[in-house]
Amino acid sequence: MAEVKLLGAWGSPFSRRVEMALKLKGIDYEYIEEDLANKSPLLLKYNPIHKKVPVLLHNGKAIVESLVILEYIDETWKTNPILPEHPYDKAMARFWAKFIDEKCMPATWQIMFRKEDEREKAIEEAIQNLKVLENELKDKKFFGGDKIGLVDIVANFIGFWLGAAQEAAGVELVNKESFPVLCKWIDEYVNCKVIKENLPPRDKLIAFLQPRFMASTWKY
Amino acid sequence: MAEVKLLGAWGSPFSRRVEMALKLKGIDYEYIEEDLANKSPLLLKYNPIHKKVPVLLHNGKAIVESLVILEYIDETWKTNPILPEHPYDKAMARFWAKFIDEKCMPATWQIMFRKEDEREKAIEEAIQNLKVLENELKDKKFFGGDKIGLVDIVANFIGFWLGAAQEAAGVELVNKESFPVLCKWIDEYVNCKVIKENLPPRDKLIAFLQPRFMASTWKY
Repeated sequence: MAEVKLLGAWGSPFSRRVEMALKLKGIDYEYIEEDLANKSPLLLKYNPIHKKVPVLLHNGKAIVESLVILEYIDETWKTNPILPEHPYDKAMARFWAKFIDEKCMPATWQIMFRKEDEREKAIEEAIQNLKVLENELKDKKFFGGDKIGLVDIVANFIGFWLGAAQEAAGVELVNKESFPVLCKWIDEYVNCKVIKENLPPRDKLIAFLQPRFMASTWKY
Repeated sequence: MAEVKLLGAWGSPFSRRVEMALKLKGIDYEYIEEDLANKSPLLLKYNPIHKKVPVLLHNGKAIVESLVILEYIDETWKTNPILPEHPYDKAMARFWAKFIDEKCMPATWQIMFRKEDEREKAIEEAIQNLKVLENELKDKKFFGGDKIGLVDIVANFIGFWLGAAQEAAGVELVNKESFPVLCKWIDEYVNCKVIKENLPPRDKLIAFLQPRFMASTWKY
């Protein structure tokens, strides 16, 4: 039987993405928690370029970068596909995954740290990107349609981490008034079994994040 | 027959990637040159989020982001595959494509613009990333092995634009002494028919880039 191991970190949305995909497909795996303040020889061996989690080991071969790993998982284990079948739909899912990674995550994350003089610009950028996502979701249950797909997995930061980060930073960017569609999705999302079981404890995450946000946080 | 159109810009390595893939597969397409200083209603209609080239239109449906387009092309037209068949090899190709886009291109590009006080750091980062690529190539003819593949197409910036940018900026980062393996690849690459036919005129590119690089360029 295939030997699957995952080097991850409990608080990382990137390694949680991989856990979600593996669980969704029912793949048994050994999970190895990495201490990112003191990286293991295993992590440095298998991801010498980026030295980051997640690293998926499959029969001794390493695959890194969460988006690359998710595609690998979907191609290797066919049950419960996370990418759509048609090339165009696949392209759309890849587009949104990239948009979340490159636009939404940095913009929303930076708000928590952003210095006073850059606040306005950061908030504006984050709102604009989240509005694009809100518009994409519209009346769909999940980004993937009726069930969790690649984009939902990639959006776990917005589905869970963002709320904890908001609480830790004392910021309120996303709520039911400002983003009703996203908030409805968040509700569905965190109550979905495979997602719920693969999220870090909220209190632990908030306690972890709080000291990392500088004193210059503000109420939006 | 399928109707394929490409909105591109002559000097963009990103839209040239798409042309390379289409030509490699022998797909007929209509090319529409975009004036990026005065974006067309067509571009704004089909790429309303990023408002960038390239945009591939296939039977009226738009696909954007060059990496997403390359995967779409490879899945839609099976002749002359640009991605390997096995999921692990595919993952490796995706990893390198992402590495070039997110690490190599920004680092090397910024050197041309970088202010005096950030020069050392920028050069160090660019060299480090290019050494990683040099090491990956080793004794392979192309990143894809014996023939041009996804990574070679994505690396067109290093294969051609970097040389023109170096000349325009008066910088010499990559040469036969510092990067013998990459330089050998560059020679093979630009002499490959499908690549050569899809590169912008070198003089025109240098004339376009030169005024864009500030007076603070330097000899490495």
